[in-house]
Amino acid sequence: MNVDFGNALATETNRGVSEDSLERLDERVARIHERIEAGIEDREFGYASLALPADTDPEEIREAVAGFDPDAVLTVGIGGSSLGADTISAALGLEGHYSLDNVDPAHTKRLLADLPLESTLVNVVSKSGTTAETLANFLVVQEAMDEAGVDWTERTVVTTGEEGPLRELADEHDLPSCSVPDGVPGRFSALSAVGLLPAAALGGDIESVLDGGAAGREALTPSLFESPAYAYGAVAYALEQRGATTNAFVPYAEDLEPFAEWFAQLWAESLGKDGLGQTPARALGATDQHSQLQLYRAGRADKLVTLVRPRERSDLAIPETDIKELSYLGGGSLGDLLDAEFEATEASLAAADQPNVRIEIDRLDAEGVGELLYAMEAACILYGELLDVSTFTQPAVEWGKRAARGLLGGGDFEEADAVEDKTVRSVEK
Amino acid sequence: MNVDFGNALATETNRGVSEDSLERLDERVARIHERIEAGIEDREFGYASLALPADTDPEEIREAVAGFDPDAVLTVGIGGSSLGADTISAALGLEGHYSLDNVDPAHTKRLLADLPLESTLVNVVSKSGTTAETLANFLVVQEAMDEAGVDWTERTVVTTGEEGPLRELADEHDLPSCSVPDGVPGRFSALSAVGLLPAAALGGDIESVLDGGAAGREALTPSLFESPAYAYGAVAYALEQRGATTNAFVPYAEDLEPFAEWFAQLWAESLGKDGLGQTPARALGATDQHSQLQLYRAGRADKLVTLVRPRERSDLAIPETDIKELSYLGGGSLGDLLDAEFEATEASLAAADQPNVRIEIDRLDAEGVGELLYAMEAACILYGELLDVSTFTQPAVEWGKRAARGLLGGGDFEEADAVEDKTVRSVEK
Repeated sequence: MNVDFGNALATETNRGVSEDSLERLDERVARIHERIEAGIEDREFGYASLALPADTDPEEIREAVAGFDPDAVLTVGIGGSSLGADTISAALGLEGHYSLDNVDPAHTKRLLADLPLESTLVNVVSKSGTTAETLANFLVVQEAMDEAGVDWTERTVVTTGEEGPLRELADEHDLPSCSVPDGVPGRFSALSAVGLLPAAALGGDIESVLDGGAAGREALTPSLFESPAYAYGAVAYALEQRGATTNAFVPYAEDLEPFAEWFAQLWAESLGKDGLGQTPARALGATDQHSQLQLYRAGRADKLVTLVRPRERSDLAIPETDIKELSYLGGGSLGDLLDAEFEATEASLAAADQPNVRIEIDRLDAEGVGELLYAMEAACILYGELLDVSTFTQPAVEWGKRAARGLLGGGDFEEADAVEDKTVRSVEK
Repeated sequence: MNVDFGNALATETNRGVSEDSLERLDERVARIHERIEAGIEDREFGYASLALPADTDPEEIREAVAGFDPDAVLTVGIGGSSLGADTISAALGLEGHYSLDNVDPAHTKRLLADLPLESTLVNVVSKSGTTAETLANFLVVQEAMDEAGVDWTERTVVTTGEEGPLRELADEHDLPSCSVPDGVPGRFSALSAVGLLPAAALGGDIESVLDGGAAGREALTPSLFESPAYAYGAVAYALEQRGATTNAFVPYAEDLEPFAEWFAQLWAESLGKDGLGQTPARALGATDQHSQLQLYRAGRADKLVTLVRPRERSDLAIPETDIKELSYLGGGSLGDLLDAEFEATEASLAAADQPNVRIEIDRLDAEGVGELLYAMEAACILYGELLDVSTFTQPAVEWGKRAARGLLGGGDFEEADAVEDKTVRSVEK
């Protein structure tokens, strides 16, 4: 893995960070590295996430999905319970993974009508076993399977905590199950059964994903100048201090689109606290050059742009053409074009004084995505320590959960009253 | 359509706008409305976009797709040439629309292998007829069809300008074609053949989309207090002046996900200029409550959150359950749950002093999406005038295009040399 922050240096952009500042920052990185290592060692809450590649037993996951050989895997989960699975399945190029990660009636109805339910494996994921969206969807899925004459207890696997309604359900119906690892918040759980189970069920090489994670673990050293993950976390932090309050995160690979969503959750929920934290704005290269690049170059000077790509890809030749204006394309390849656009965008941001960082993996494969997930988690944890926020909690989402539950008659919550008292100022036509 | 900015008022949030300020702003809105009306009347560059619902001839589009009756429509286009078509097809719930809007070799290969090429309609869209990504993909598609024994000249429709390589190709092979309307930048062209053709080919009611656009046109009046589109544009502008430099745009409907992408292009490319403009951060409700909400409530105080929903949906009941902790869900519906989450999130943002605006359409159908597209375009144009930026151009993307072309051997461009001179500061492992 390569992190190149040349275009984020003060010598290159007015909003950049100087080598001197990075040297000073590196002293804090060394101390934080010790803190992180101790947390990993003791499996402290949150820090335990970085122990996952070693702590995850791929055999347990393989056992849970043994004998299914499904045409499709339907993950019923939301947030950290689905984004890791989406990311890994897509990065491995596995077709047949679907997520019910919303409670949109039209979408749920359509997806259940389209899936071959008799050969679908339902993968229900909720640590508490009480997540409203997930459990509501799971009840709907059970009914759809009943109606299709499929015994859902024969086609369901559960990943949940040691206790709670889902665990009880698994026990009652003798469902295969995996455990959400202790001390690991959902958004940090990709390298456990939470992220790996669908890939395993679809024949993916989850051992190599874990190997990639282990390589990421190996690469953590006490200096940002030697550890790609810390280099990214430290430079992103330094740029936020210098005004880059938005992190536009742009992978140049369609199969990394879910990874950008996963990153957006990781960054937002871990760092968006106490009035601090970068706002992740996810995009996709080269597509969004035709959508967001104008803003990145000429809009507000408040962004870090992170460009991510695999160094090698399987390629596709562009046929020769006798159209004169296009002859420069013929004989090249889509990969050449994509790489030229990556490098041109990077240089064009630099020329417009916009700091940017390049992240590269060797190839987009099982090892590559494992390394990438691990490195971004470590970068985020370092960043949170530098920022002095509580990286592993998400207190601000509780208010809305109580309000929604109150509105649905699930108890008496004062937050629900606030909803009724909304100030309305409507312009309607 | 309803725009409710109660939660953006200074009485509700410290970063809000007062009724007094809005009264003063409304005088500018009235003058700008006259400017916009004159621009529409004269079909001036850019303003001509708001004349589209009347200027678009649905018969011309129907004629271009007559006789195809395809199982799939493959739009080959990027940015404004694909996002409108994606938005309208999804909002109409039409299955079978695919876009090649990137030059990712793996993705292109997989999509072409999965499509039934003999019953696919290829829809190539490029105003200039020279867009590198689009034309490269089109050459690849031609070859794939040749290899599958399908005559691409019998399965291709073209939407392009009056001149250029695509127009010549259409003439040479007698391909059905539509014209990109004059004076309309790509990101404002959804209500023309550019956005409507795939829906027409898949049996969608494009006349009602245009009716919705016409209703949006009717609703433009000289006051922000009477026109929902202007209310949104003016309030969003006022909030940017007060620190809301990010616009988190969150539809609560899966079928509006492409609409959020379309909005992100509209906002970024039109307003991201001269160091100004809100950065659009697209998200999806309720899913991203489990991802971004922590940041929206407790991160930097630099956001407007825009919540979008249809007032009515076809719904799906949640079956009763004997699991005690979940009994409050049973007997309700997914739609109830989604609406409760919408309102809870809105109230939770207000309680955390974060300004937010609610946008509602009656239903997510052809008319609803037409109205929504038109209103957001009008809102954007008003906003651009208030901000004094050049709404209809995108000068900052040209640098990168020249650099990429130079790198690919398509001419001698000094921008390509800058790419070679990149400052490298790598941390690799």
